[in-house]
Amino acid sequence: MKFCSECGEKVHLGVPQGDNRPRYICASCETIHYQNPKMVVGCLVEHENKVLLCKRAIEPRYGLWTLPAGFMENEETTMQAAARETLEEAGADVEITQLFTMFSLPHIDQVYMLYRAKFKEVVFSAGSESLEVGLFSESEIPWDKIAFPVITESLKRFFADKKSGQFQIHNGAMFKQLENQQVSFHVTVLDEH
Amino acid sequence: MKFCSECGEKVHLGVPQGDNRPRYICASCETIHYQNPKMVVGCLVEHENKVLLCKRAIEPRYGLWTLPAGFMENEETTMQAAARETLEEAGADVEITQLFTMFSLPHIDQVYMLYRAKFKEVVFSAGSESLEVGLFSESEIPWDKIAFPVITESLKRFFADKKSGQFQIHNGAMFKQLENQQVSFHVTVLDEH
Repeated sequence: MKFCSECGEKVHLGVPQGDNRPRYICASCETIHYQNPKMVVGCLVEHENKVLLCKRAIEPRYGLWTLPAGFMENEETTMQAAARETLEEAGADVEITQLFTMFSLPHIDQVYMLYRAKFKEVVFSAGSESLEVGLFSESEIPWDKIAFPVITESLKRFFADKKSGQFQIHNGAMFKQLENQQVSFHVTVLDEH
Repeated sequence: MKFCSECGEKVHLGVPQGDNRPRYICASCETIHYQNPKMVVGCLVEHENKVLLCKRAIEPRYGLWTLPAGFMENEETTMQAAARETLEEAGADVEITQLFTMFSLPHIDQVYMLYRAKFKEVVFSAGSESLEVGLFSESEIPWDKIAFPVITESLKRFFADKKSGQFQIHNGAMFKQLENQQVSFHVTVLDEH
């Protein structure tokens, strides 16, 4: 952010009175521009022991596999956002059944939320942001070609819960770590519910 | 939004190619400015059948009671945000134990998330955004002086779960309704977990 979106003058970084964090401030019209994390919301659609994955047709991670998910929009609910993204990216009309994972990703200022869902009809097709869409069992999933660590983490927890016979709500955070030029993630979760 | 925060030129509303919603677009530098919901995160701190409430020292709803909660910041997790807000507004150092409610509020583009928490030490005091902070049993709560409908809804569910002996995670939405100039909220929740 370089200019004030209200008056067009240059902004500067400063800590407003009564605040404790630097914000972009407009000296001309005195607007304080807050920046907050975004929610990415999607679905884990289950059908006959398989889950619906999309092969990305867009950057980042073009050509890798993910669950249908995207940025929540204004004027919608998390459940509506999850169903909309699943329709847009995977051509699937689904019923949301339960919150499954919610991971904070503080290194990219996102909260990633996935719902369990089932098909209203078993119909799916690649949307404009997908090259290909398909149903995969645990052993069929291309585990080395998953687009994002939070998707791998969520899929692993899904199949583990499925084996245990009890689906939980997994709420936690994934912290990016860099050690010997290797990126890894430290995962913390609250006591499972 | 009237001006581009990247180049300072005027923006216009338009639907970008491949998109289906109007966005603020800069014709000069071609930046698309997305606007997304914000997360408000806080704590329901329990101690001996009482919960910790704050009397607001700021607008909106100055003088009314609420749970300690506020906008999640970049570079933090939802759990860190909930604990930070509780420390800032109620002077209480808490341990987060469990996600309790998550309600989408589409009429104000917010997702409101409350965690159950307990004191590390039973110490609390009014922060700069609170006039007063106190512990209230169900019958002591000033039910007609609660600042926000989502707080009333969460407190009711808290005491109901407490009576049932089983705390659930309540995930849903509250839709604002206007009928005969009376505002009310239609509440939907996913099957309780």
